[in-house]
Amino acid sequence: MNDFVGQFLAKKDYKDIHVSRHLLPFEDHKFLKAADARVMVRGAGVYLWDEHGNKFLDGLSGLWCTALGYGRPELIAAAAAQMETLSYCSQYFNTTNPAIAELSAKLFDLLPSPFSRVLYTNSGSEANDLMIKLVRRFWQLAGKPGKRILIARHNGYHGATIASASLGGMKLMHELSGGMIDDVHHIDEPYRFGLRDAQDETAFGVHAARELEAKILELGADRVGAFVAEPFQGAGGVIFPPASYWPEIQRICTRYDVLLCADEVVGGFGRTGSWFAHEYFGFAPDMMTIAKGLTSGYVPMGGLVLTQRIADTLADCGGTFAHGLTYQGHPLAAAVALATLRLLDDGGIVDMVENDTGPYLQRCLREVLGGHVLVAEIHGAGAVAALQLAYGRHKDQRFSNENMVGLYCMRKALEHGLILRTTAARLIVAPALVATRAEIDELVGKLRLTLDDAARALKMM
Amino acid sequence: MNDFVGQFLAKKDYKDIHVSRHLLPFEDHKFLKAADARVMVRGAGVYLWDEHGNKFLDGLSGLWCTALGYGRPELIAAAAAQMETLSYCSQYFNTTNPAIAELSAKLFDLLPSPFSRVLYTNSGSEANDLMIKLVRRFWQLAGKPGKRILIARHNGYHGATIASASLGGMKLMHELSGGMIDDVHHIDEPYRFGLRDAQDETAFGVHAARELEAKILELGADRVGAFVAEPFQGAGGVIFPPASYWPEIQRICTRYDVLLCADEVVGGFGRTGSWFAHEYFGFAPDMMTIAKGLTSGYVPMGGLVLTQRIADTLADCGGTFAHGLTYQGHPLAAAVALATLRLLDDGGIVDMVENDTGPYLQRCLREVLGGHVLVAEIHGAGAVAALQLAYGRHKDQRFSNENMVGLYCMRKALEHGLILRTTAARLIVAPALVATRAEIDELVGKLRLTLDDAARALKMM
Repeated sequence: MNDFVGQFLAKKDYKDIHVSRHLLPFEDHKFLKAADARVMVRGAGVYLWDEHGNKFLDGLSGLWCTALGYGRPELIAAAAAQMETLSYCSQYFNTTNPAIAELSAKLFDLLPSPFSRVLYTNSGSEANDLMIKLVRRFWQLAGKPGKRILIARHNGYHGATIASASLGGMKLMHELSGGMIDDVHHIDEPYRFGLRDAQDETAFGVHAARELEAKILELGADRVGAFVAEPFQGAGGVIFPPASYWPEIQRICTRYDVLLCADEVVGGFGRTGSWFAHEYFGFAPDMMTIAKGLTSGYVPMGGLVLTQRIADTLADCGGTFAHGLTYQGHPLAAAVALATLRLLDDGGIVDMVENDTGPYLQRCLREVLGGHVLVAEIHGAGAVAALQLAYGRHKDQRFSNENMVGLYCMRKALEHGLILRTTAARLIVAPALVATRAEIDELVGKLRLTLDDAARALKMM
Repeated sequence: MNDFVGQFLAKKDYKDIHVSRHLLPFEDHKFLKAADARVMVRGAGVYLWDEHGNKFLDGLSGLWCTALGYGRPELIAAAAAQMETLSYCSQYFNTTNPAIAELSAKLFDLLPSPFSRVLYTNSGSEANDLMIKLVRRFWQLAGKPGKRILIARHNGYHGATIASASLGGMKLMHELSGGMIDDVHHIDEPYRFGLRDAQDETAFGVHAARELEAKILELGADRVGAFVAEPFQGAGGVIFPPASYWPEIQRICTRYDVLLCADEVVGGFGRTGSWFAHEYFGFAPDMMTIAKGLTSGYVPMGGLVLTQRIADTLADCGGTFAHGLTYQGHPLAAAVALATLRLLDDGGIVDMVENDTGPYLQRCLREVLGGHVLVAEIHGAGAVAALQLAYGRHKDQRFSNENMVGLYCMRKALEHGLILRTTAARLIVAPALVATRAEIDELVGKLRLTLDDAARALKMM
């Protein structure tokens, strides 16, 4: 059996294969160097080790996904047991299996009661792509086929398929696709920092939400089917809108009969301390997409969850539901997701993030770094946060070379043994939900060293 | 640990959850009955067992994916070892890991030499969606941005995202999406059976291929970027084109500088006895999508493979490659894919399908069933085949209720303990590549019982 497990190449080849055999995410391959590549060889808890034995605290839990950290024995046991019992089963031809049924039972125990049905996918991208379809299909069946337009936000992120990238507000991604799909429009993100004429936070939140109303009126409510957004933007920079934003969005969607769709791929499953980020912000979506935390990133899985109004219309009036995925409801993904949800719920991990480690992280960030010469603003809740770097007497000036500042911090953090992510000059942390107070102390300490390095390099310290 | 593994619900609840909590692939939920659902609880080798202990020979290897059968110990060991070592790692930020490097090294050992780079996805859908993007991006970078149109085929299948479903030729799927993306056109499939004015097979193959030439000339070669097709249609009915078809397609694509893109999601990794179906049919694509057999269906994974001309253009002239997936190159999927490829290659399984069990299956089907009163035509090679059912003295009349005939056979086959799939009145088998001669005998025997049942029901026997 050993012939089929394990490693065969010389270590030095990994980097060459990495850069010569792949097209890599968001890289310019012309400038990509094999020598700069990092080979990760081991993970345990919140830590990763590279090929040289260097240890890193993973401050981003993979890509916001390894909620339970690396190498969690319960997930490995669940995966092995499932593979031995039933390594594959589809949902086609009216077939099911215990793993997927158990998962859905647990999922709907956790979800607020308006949610009624789920379609599993392999990723958040596929889930958001499907959401676009089902918004349009719902309105067809509801007798308003004109309501095809989806409104989303500039600098929002909803995935990498052609349709989900259209929904996202990332121009480079639209260019790669050769344009957007039809009938998708964008409004501004609720990102207040550095705006010259910024109102106070509450007024700004309402104002930003009313861009949606203006856009609906501009396009015609009879043509607008849905508003889609992340409760807080993930890849866009962990931008937490003011408390006034979401209630106003909800009011507008209700008023114009526009579906409110939440992308919970980053925010779901306890990231903010609430089970879902829309609960943290206090609104009730009609549809919701999930992924990442659902399986703690151990197996690809996403999903689209529908409230009863939508689900009943699709199921009762829709005829043949002409959609299917080979790995929809994959039993391995389901078994790992079930074990993840049981740990998060029965294991008390979301409760811990809500009541202990989440508030602790937020407090430490603010107490230790809030007064740092580079830190202008801290957003976040639970186990996710962003530090906005800026300069000037009131720390309200944005760096002209924000990307450079951010990338410098990312590199310095790695030198200090911390993995973080940046969006322009926002430093983002989203550690595993299992991170202890001691690990949070370590994260904040390494962040401080990173910020000090940057301040010195910028001659601000 | 046991609290997080295993099953919690009463068995009877599985079916209720199945129909009440999901939107299910290609079902009309209005007519779907929980009582009719089948709960699969165990798989081993080519067999599945339902909750009542009924045993089924899985004649479709899941959805053409479980190439190595169920519960294969080498894959489970590879998965467990990988999860314990490194349960997640992304390809972002110039990061790699041994599992994905080993997989890519092995994959390019197996691929014909023009192939140069791969992008891993989570599914065939995502891979085909990405193919559309990269066709358009390639032509932008190659200085011919007008070549945006992709030509595909009616009754082709390329996945379920909005874009990949547009590429597919399934009308119901276009309706669910609320239409197709722009600049996708379709020509007819090379399906000769029952055509009144059918030429001989060779002439028909050339004629069918020349529909592509006519479409290119109609649209303008300066607007057509690619032709996309499955070497043989999978979901469309395992339609093997005449030997004359693909060489003529290749000639046309070369002549008009149109990229030739092969969807190898069903046909790849030894299904036909050749490593890739395009090798079986003797043509050389510019791009190829893969999934299913890549991981033997144990973990979701797909990919898009590019020949050097395309890959170099994208890497050298493309700037930032604005595409990424959280689970792109997932180490668990990679470890299982690597173990799969080693079994298929070093373990001699593809060789066995090519030289022993594949020819044996094809011969048995033709010898045992070729003369059956219902069987008009048998297509296939290696471990995949379709039986076209028809009636009349020359068995050239198609049933007016083809779907009913097919579904009747599918139900009867289940009663005989055989899982198969139908497209209209074509019965499709695609057993695991590890199926032995004895298991093939069993499959063919059960098929014969099924056909006898159908012939009696149709009063043809």
